[in-house]
Amino acid sequence: MKLIDYADASEEVRAVYDDIMAKRNVPDVNNFWKAIAHDPKTLKRTWESIQEIMAAGELDPMVKELIYIAVSATNGCEYCVASHTAAAKQKGMSDAMFGELMAVVGMANETNRLIAGYRVPLDEKFKV
Amino acid sequence: MKLIDYADASEEVRAVYDDIMAKRNVPDVNNFWKAIAHDPKTLKRTWESIQEIMAAGELDPMVKELIYIAVSATNGCEYCVASHTAAAKQKGMSDAMFGELMAVVGMANETNRLIAGYRVPLDEKFKV
Amino acid sequence: MKLIDYADASEEVRAVYDDIMAKRNVPDVNNFWKAIAHDPKTLKRTWESIQEIMAAGELDPMVKELIYIAVSATNGCEYCVASHTAAAKQKGMSDAMFGELMAVVGMANETNRLIAGYRVPLDEKFKV
Amino acid sequence: MKLIDYADASEEVRAVYDDIMAKRNVPDVNNFWKAIAHDPKTLKRTWESIQEIMAAGELDPMVKELIYIAVSATNGCEYCVASHTAAAKQKGMSDAMFGELMAVVGMANETNRLIAGYRVPLDEKFKV
Amino acid sequence: MKLIDYADASEEVRAVYDDIMAKRNVPDVNNFWKAIAHDPKTLKRTWESIQEIMAAGELDPMVKELIYIAVSATNGCEYCVASHTAAAKQKGMSDAMFGELMAVVGMANETNRLIAGYRVPLDEKFKV
Amino acid sequence: MKLIDYADASEEVRAVYDDIMAKRNVPDVNNFWKAIAHDPKTLKRTWESIQEIMAAGELDPMVKELIYIAVSATNGCEYCVASHTAAAKQKGMSDAMFGELMAVVGMANETNRLIAGYRVPLDEKFKV
Repeated sequence: MKLIDYADASEEVRAVYDDIMAKRNVPDVNNFWKAIAHDPKTLKRTWESIQEIMAAGELDPMVKELIYIAVSATNGCEYCVASHTAAAKQKGMSDAMFGELMAVVGMANETNRLIAGYRVPLDEKFKV
Repeated sequence: MKLIDYADASEEVRAVYDDIMAKRNVPDVNNFWKAIAHDPKTLKRTWESIQEIMAAGELDPMVKELIYIAVSATNGCEYCVASHTAAAKQKGMSDAMFGELMAVVGMANETNRLIAGYRVPLDEKFKV
Repeated sequence: MKLIDYADASEEVRAVYDDIMAKRNVPDVNNFWKAIAHDPKTLKRTWESIQEIMAAGELDPMVKELIYIAVSATNGCEYCVASHTAAAKQKGMSDAMFGELMAVVGMANETNRLIAGYRVPLDEKFKV
Repeated sequence: MKLIDYADASEEVRAVYDDIMAKRNVPDVNNFWKAIAHDPKTLKRTWESIQEIMAAGELDPMVKELIYIAVSATNGCEYCVASHTAAAKQKGMSDAMFGELMAVVGMANETNRLIAGYRVPLDEKFKV
Repeated sequence: MKLIDYADASEEVRAVYDDIMAKRNVPDVNNFWKAIAHDPKTLKRTWESIQEIMAAGELDPMVKELIYIAVSATNGCEYCVASHTAAAKQKGMSDAMFGELMAVVGMANETNRLIAGYRVPLDEKFKV
Repeated sequence: MKLIDYADASEEVRAVYDDIMAKRNVPDVNNFWKAIAHDPKTLKRTWESIQEIMAAGELDPMVKELIYIAVSATNGCEYCVASHTAAAKQKGMSDAMFGELMAVVGMANETNRLIAGYRVPLDEKFKV
């Protein structure tokens, strides 16, 4: 699928691009947005959802980026790892933090599968 | 696989159980440990690795638990979600934090797949 | 693994290639077939299974391609997304249909993980 | 996490529950909604997104349910398989259609992994 | 979906059940077969494929079961882990072998994700 | 993340590199090690764990590589498939063995999802 550049975008799409560029203070939007712009509803819904979800709340925005990276590495999504690692750095993630993040991600993936293989039953105290 | 209770454990296994109970100040170890105790080397290695990885460092121990939950929910590991949600709560995770965590996990899983489906190419700036 | 071109293929492999080219009316087979041709049994079994499974039945062949893409995007398999998107287009998938497909795939991946994270118990009516 | 029943829900949550019950013509909402109601923003956003995404469009609502099931089976999400299989049946999915759906899902998962294992390079014609 | 017992099965389905019971020397077939019997084509195709794939060849049948367990634990499929662990034991897998299997499965899942997170580029020598 | 070459490595990292090169009798370490060297603890822990896990035991080292490949193909990790396929060949895996390995991996991924989709209940005999 061809990426949709600003010059070729419909007004509906441009409105979202404009909002992204303004709020993120960047001269252009990432390829992700240019790809899903083929479906303007998904473009708009995703942009609105991401703003709501990634905003500062009880969790720090940088911590939210760490969580995003953890999911993306687990799913093997190179694009998402790359873009959210960049975002996390902008929000203060140090190299040492990234190293610790990856160590936890690796260990969690390891024990998740040990538990599946050994078919570990839930402890009584963990039952809902 | 039968879980290995303390009473039935070898000395090698008991040494790990004792260490877990002492350091976590609990009267018994979780089923996870009693399952992998069938392989004492894995029991010992996993316990040592988890201590090293989950200790306070550049990232807060609670944040590490959030990351663990994010991976476990992505992998659909009920046991891991249950046990690490309990651990995260003990380390200060509020219900509101959990809600935000899940929102990020859900969104990351959604965009990871949008990117795979649209085959979004890496932006130049994200290339290594 | 080197791809096995027609010129270098055994008679057993050529017979499958010939059948694929004839039934699909194409001058050559895709790389997928040239790769698994290293194992002629898997080549033959896979070709026979795909014909049986992807044929028109209660579901339209285009709908079957949509399902194939949904799985492939969820698994992050670029090759499969690419080849089955091409096949779906040939069978009538419009760009708008693709957009809706991706929206469902994204949402399903999101809610699948929300359900794992919140550990949602089955409603009584859904129990087998 | 305790499910939030209507009786215990905040006004914000009840408004969403009311809308779900009215539009789906059901006497109560599923456990999924009662679980994510712990995070009213996610409840509202998810309900709005699902309505937009699952509505009739270029794809038939039943086909969208088939896609949802395909993703959910691939991710091993029992709750989602159960609830969307029920929804698909309501929208006209026959047992024979379900059988064909599963056959495609199985085959796609098989070939996705064959392609990863054989490291099949993209055919020139599939390159973006 | 109701399981289809022998008494309620069509002749087409019974023929497969008879073959499974005869070749495996068992008085009844597992639930897996009784479930997919809803789609007789998938039942027949899967049984034929499994016989071809799991037979002794260059790899020992027990080793093939170990591989089956490795995949099933990675996918978090409890049924498959359970049934193939039983099959592996019948074919000679000891408890110690199972422990080593799980250790490799855990480690592979860990490093798979470290590699995704660190975005490790292929070494020249590994390029096709 | 830049790979850390020997010339730029700290003494702590060099010690691990030296050990890998000596024990594997190679003139340089793979990119995997040069990437995780950003986190010397993870580098050291992973190297020690891999030695313990991949050593000859009840399972043959080649069989352990087959298991590693099975997991890596299931997770879609190209780097891991490439490096462990090379390692497996060095330890005696023939092309025919690889073909059988892939056939099992494909079939396991297929039936894992059939079981999830059909929601197959555990047979009594498989219950723990």
